Amino acid sequence: MSSDDTLARLTAVIENRKGGDPDKSYVARLLHKGPEAFLKKIGEEATEVVMAAKDADHGGPREKIVAEMADLWFHSMVALAHYGLSAADVVAELARREGLSGIEEKALRKVREREAGE
Amino acid sequence: MSSDDTLARLTAVIENRKGGDPDKSYVARLLHKGPEAFLKKIGEEATEVVMAAKDADHGGPREKIVAEMADLWFHSMVALAHYGLSAADVVAELARREGLSGIEEKALRKVREREAGE
Amino acid sequence: MSSDDTLARLTAVIENRKGGDPDKSYVARLLHKGPEAFLKKIGEEATEVVMAAKDADHGGPREKIVAEMADLWFHSMVALAHYGLSAADVVAELARREGLSGIEEKALRKVREREAGE
Amino acid sequence: MSSDDTLARLTAVIENRKGGDPDKSYVARLLHKGPEAFLKKIGEEATEVVMAAKDADHGGPREKIVAEMADLWFHSMVALAHYGLSAADVVAELARREGLSGIEEKALRKVREREAGE
Repeated sequence: MSSDDTLARLTAVIENRKGGDPDKSYVARLLHKGPEAFLKKIGEEATEVVMAAKDADHGGPREKIVAEMADLWFHSMVALAHYGLSAADVVAELARREGLSGIEEKALRKVREREAGE
Repeated sequence: MSSDDTLARLTAVIENRKGGDPDKSYVARLLHKGPEAFLKKIGEEATEVVMAAKDADHGGPREKIVAEMADLWFHSMVALAHYGLSAADVVAELARREGLSGIEEKALRKVREREAGE
Repeated sequence: MSSDDTLARLTAVIENRKGGDPDKSYVARLLHKGPEAFLKKIGEEATEVVMAAKDADHGGPREKIVAEMADLWFHSMVALAHYGLSAADVVAELARREGLSGIEEKALRKVREREAGE
Repeated sequence: MSSDDTLARLTAVIENRKGGDPDKSYVARLLHKGPEAFLKKIGEEATEVVMAAKDADHGGPREKIVAEMADLWFHSMVALAHYGLSAADVVAELARREGLSGIEEKALRKVREREAGE
């Protein structure tokens, strides 16, 4: 199964949960609660990614990083769905900035703008 | 182009930057600086996603959410590369938890464990 | 010097920087740039606190935690100033929730509400 | 009541909860669970501060910022207690960097070092 298949199928499932029963589906519950709920999760899961990475720096399991990153990306996708967006839009944006040279140019340009502005 | 192609190609480019010249490549620079540098970016970019989403709640452009989410996922991929991991591992984990019922079961189980533990 | 003196004096200095020369003062620069700038710093500094704490769990210096927490609280105070608030308002809120029993009651009530709502 | 008094008293109460019954005290529960629990809260509360600030930018109540910042500082203090530190250490660090000129010098120096390093 390709990443494409997985992200597209996951998007379809999340879309399908919109308006669903908050007592039966975690996604329906998050979407029902609204932005505060899933945006808070993004902050929380990003912190958990950082903690798992720090633990890995000190000998902890890399699997924890994967699990926390999956949580972060999953809640990212729930947020995207709320705004009528999807992982495909994010991936398209990444492709647009490509070849990676393009991404790097943008990043370096931002660094230089920041340097110039500070 | 599929999401799979894009993420795989982006992974290849990031891998290719490992050990590269920090003065010529933003990715090489981040990887050269080490975990503090790119993990801090994950916290920062997650915050920017939240701000863009909040702005969208108040009429701001959804494109900003896509751009910030692309930054978050991009820096996630740089971090993954440092630990010998990739987006494919994250997507595989998302697939493993699937069908979304599986992800939801996990999420609901965590919610219930938390409720039981508190 | 008491904490009171320090936070009050720091508040006065930050207030004094409002409208100041962005090229001469870091605080004036942050306030001049607006919310995106200092709110992003709050997300970034919170992440740095977490990283320093994780390092301390693995034998790193506790002084790093203090330094990062000082950065977090300092940028918190800059943000408060932008909104016409100050550390005194935050401390008053903490006092209002007191004795700590009060804070805990609130926290436990929130936990129970969350459990009931989920 | 001075900020000093409030923070010192709050510190004493938190210290007093160490080793206490996790079922009776929220602080004892957080400390009992360990770093993952309260560090995650720091990431989460920082995100809530940012959301409240963004809402205030769009007409929302400033009181929400104060409440979320109180949560952030409170959980900061719980974390400090775990590491044998306290708000007094953070305030002393802020004082040490003073007059604010000192803090600003440090911040500007960091900005310049970053510019030089990038």
